[in-house]
Amino acid sequence: MPDDSFVVTPYEVKGAIDYDRLRELFGTQSVDDPLKERLRELAGGELPPLLRRGVYYSHRDLGVLLEQYVRGQRFFLYSGRGPSGPMHTAHLLAFDLCRWFQERFRVPMYIQITDDEKFWLRPGTTREETRSWGLENLLDILAVGFDPARTRVYFDTRSIGTMYPVAVDVAKRIPYSTVKAVFGFKPATNIGLVFYTALQTVPAFYPSYRAGRPVPCLIPCGIDQDPHFRVTRDIAESLGYPKPSLLHSQIVPGLLGGKMSSGGNEKDNALFLNDPPKEIDRKVRNAFTGGRATVEEQRRLGATPEVCSVWALWRTKFARDDTEFERVTSDCRSGAMLCGECKGKLLERVHPFLEEHAKRREAARPYAESLIVGDTPGPAPDLPEP
Amino acid sequence: MPDDSFVVTPYEVKGAIDYDRLRELFGTQSVDDPLKERLRELAGGELPPLLRRGVYYSHRDLGVLLEQYVRGQRFFLYSGRGPSGPMHTAHLLAFDLCRWFQERFRVPMYIQITDDEKFWLRPGTTREETRSWGLENLLDILAVGFDPARTRVYFDTRSIGTMYPVAVDVAKRIPYSTVKAVFGFKPATNIGLVFYTALQTVPAFYPSYRAGRPVPCLIPCGIDQDPHFRVTRDIAESLGYPKPSLLHSQIVPGLLGGKMSSGGNEKDNALFLNDPPKEIDRKVRNAFTGGRATVEEQRRLGATPEVCSVWALWRTKFARDDTEFERVTSDCRSGAMLCGECKGKLLERVHPFLEEHAKRREAARPYAESLIVGDTPGPAPDLPEP
Repeated sequence: MPDDSFVVTPYEVKGAIDYDRLRELFGTQSVDDPLKERLRELAGGELPPLLRRGVYYSHRDLGVLLEQYVRGQRFFLYSGRGPSGPMHTAHLLAFDLCRWFQERFRVPMYIQITDDEKFWLRPGTTREETRSWGLENLLDILAVGFDPARTRVYFDTRSIGTMYPVAVDVAKRIPYSTVKAVFGFKPATNIGLVFYTALQTVPAFYPSYRAGRPVPCLIPCGIDQDPHFRVTRDIAESLGYPKPSLLHSQIVPGLLGGKMSSGGNEKDNALFLNDPPKEIDRKVRNAFTGGRATVEEQRRLGATPEVCSVWALWRTKFARDDTEFERVTSDCRSGAMLCGECKGKLLERVHPFLEEHAKRREAARPYAESLIVGDTPGPAPDLPEP
Repeated sequence: MPDDSFVVTPYEVKGAIDYDRLRELFGTQSVDDPLKERLRELAGGELPPLLRRGVYYSHRDLGVLLEQYVRGQRFFLYSGRGPSGPMHTAHLLAFDLCRWFQERFRVPMYIQITDDEKFWLRPGTTREETRSWGLENLLDILAVGFDPARTRVYFDTRSIGTMYPVAVDVAKRIPYSTVKAVFGFKPATNIGLVFYTALQTVPAFYPSYRAGRPVPCLIPCGIDQDPHFRVTRDIAESLGYPKPSLLHSQIVPGLLGGKMSSGGNEKDNALFLNDPPKEIDRKVRNAFTGGRATVEEQRRLGATPEVCSVWALWRTKFARDDTEFERVTSDCRSGAMLCGECKGKLLERVHPFLEEHAKRREAARPYAESLIVGDTPGPAPDLPEP
């Protein structure tokens, strides 16, 4: 009997997730070796760690998108962020992957900042707060290294004039019963949040809408976001747009073990990009690991990387290369390296990364606003051909 | 026992409406003689026929608005139109009344064109159709004679950039359960329509939002639209805006008797502003009246103006003055004038009106677009002080 006691929706992740079972439940495809090989071949080089290490493990129609690419149909990338506070390192994964695709395939990247959604979702938050976090978060995203000439931003409350016609078309196709079933909405859910999925669909369709022909779309996202885009895919063809392809990641575990958002301790559960160095040290030192009860036991039996929040950081972002990642993993499993030592080594990677990140985000500040699609339905977000 | 078998919502009007009972059910106030006298006094002249003849018969806080006016607080007018086809003469009533208020009180008028709502509401309609009807309808509304210097237009799909911040604030305050209860939405209702009431609320709040102080608002509307604005009034104070005052009209009966929209015969049920003269003749000649079965009987017993669709036209729009209106009414009731003669006399008023209207709507064409609030949240729709 599969254990289906876990819950994964865009608004709730709980329980111990069985990822293969989740893929079955959602009806998605596996990122298997032949697909990885095809992608490697078309990209003309090695796959990024997030794909090599199985973090992005599930997809919908990625193969279809690649075969269209081979036949000359250029795709675009779309990912987003709900700005309700500072970003942490796990928030960057989808953008890291997008950056790799942009670099290798020289394709446009569209970033959505959903400040309206976060305002609707959080009872105590003001519209000014989510808008202001929206710009701060955008700098963190651009710091990942997108090519500004191939990147545009849908900032919901600032780009609505452009987005609205497509949102209006989409909203007409989605009955309340669908969003109720997919997102688990209650009678008390506000009508903004009910409407919102129409806006999250816009960037997937907009380039096709503007071009007047199907433009394939690839959306890397956490698998918890799949329900949003399942709705998008369900209505795409009735509006004459291609179904977007999806590439799903596993959910990165929080530093305290278990899920990333854990109520009151949220701040301690992740490495935020604006945390001061001492705070980073403290959090990593306190992080939940897969270690044993005693040093003696761990030397003898080894630890369990798969449940360890520190190993997840090595795996998803901080290992310099595969050699380092494999050494960390085997030394953990064998008991050759204890948790304290492992945490010290990780910190040697995290600190320089955050210093570099801070510089890159400031470097993005002068041009960030210029990438935001305006309110006026004027110029298409048509980016130069490669 | 009051007869509550009638139904009045923004999306459905059916049964024989008992207007006093409807006022009780909705909990609105009566437009009584002292209020009319106060309004006449402040307006510095006679009330318009629509108020004198009891067509606008119900209100919420009109007295409050007038006393604020006396204390120097200028109000503004707001009315709207859902553009799904050509307008008929009954559509003009709220605008006729607004025009009178604008002329007498020299106040700003805001017109909302809800092309998104009509697109969401009508299964077979395209977004381009409702948008295009929106501009056509706007010309008919401006032909009523608003002062362009004191009039601005919220055209939903064109003004969304300006409207959205306030719509976002409003949407957060309205749970799905409220719109379900108020509008009778079903699981199959699309999420655009669920969201829409937030947009219909925007013009009532926008001037206060821009000014940063409470600006009173007066909304003349059919009493079937009261539920929309009841939601608006319920949330106003929590957002720091004054509750809009409402002035409600009775529902004008259709030419075929009964309600105005009667399915397949809709086109024959009203005098459309773009109907050719022969069509107008035919419709009036076929109109449902309060006449008797035979001429002899009608001469002897008289007819019943209160149930007559032709009398409703005299009453709401076409009587040249009170003398004419009273003569028509008493000659009908006494049997002195038969229905055929009455219809002929009415046509002598309708034809010149429609000719004149057509000229005035063409005169509005050159400036209509310039009154539309843009997508860019730029200039406030702040109109010159009188």
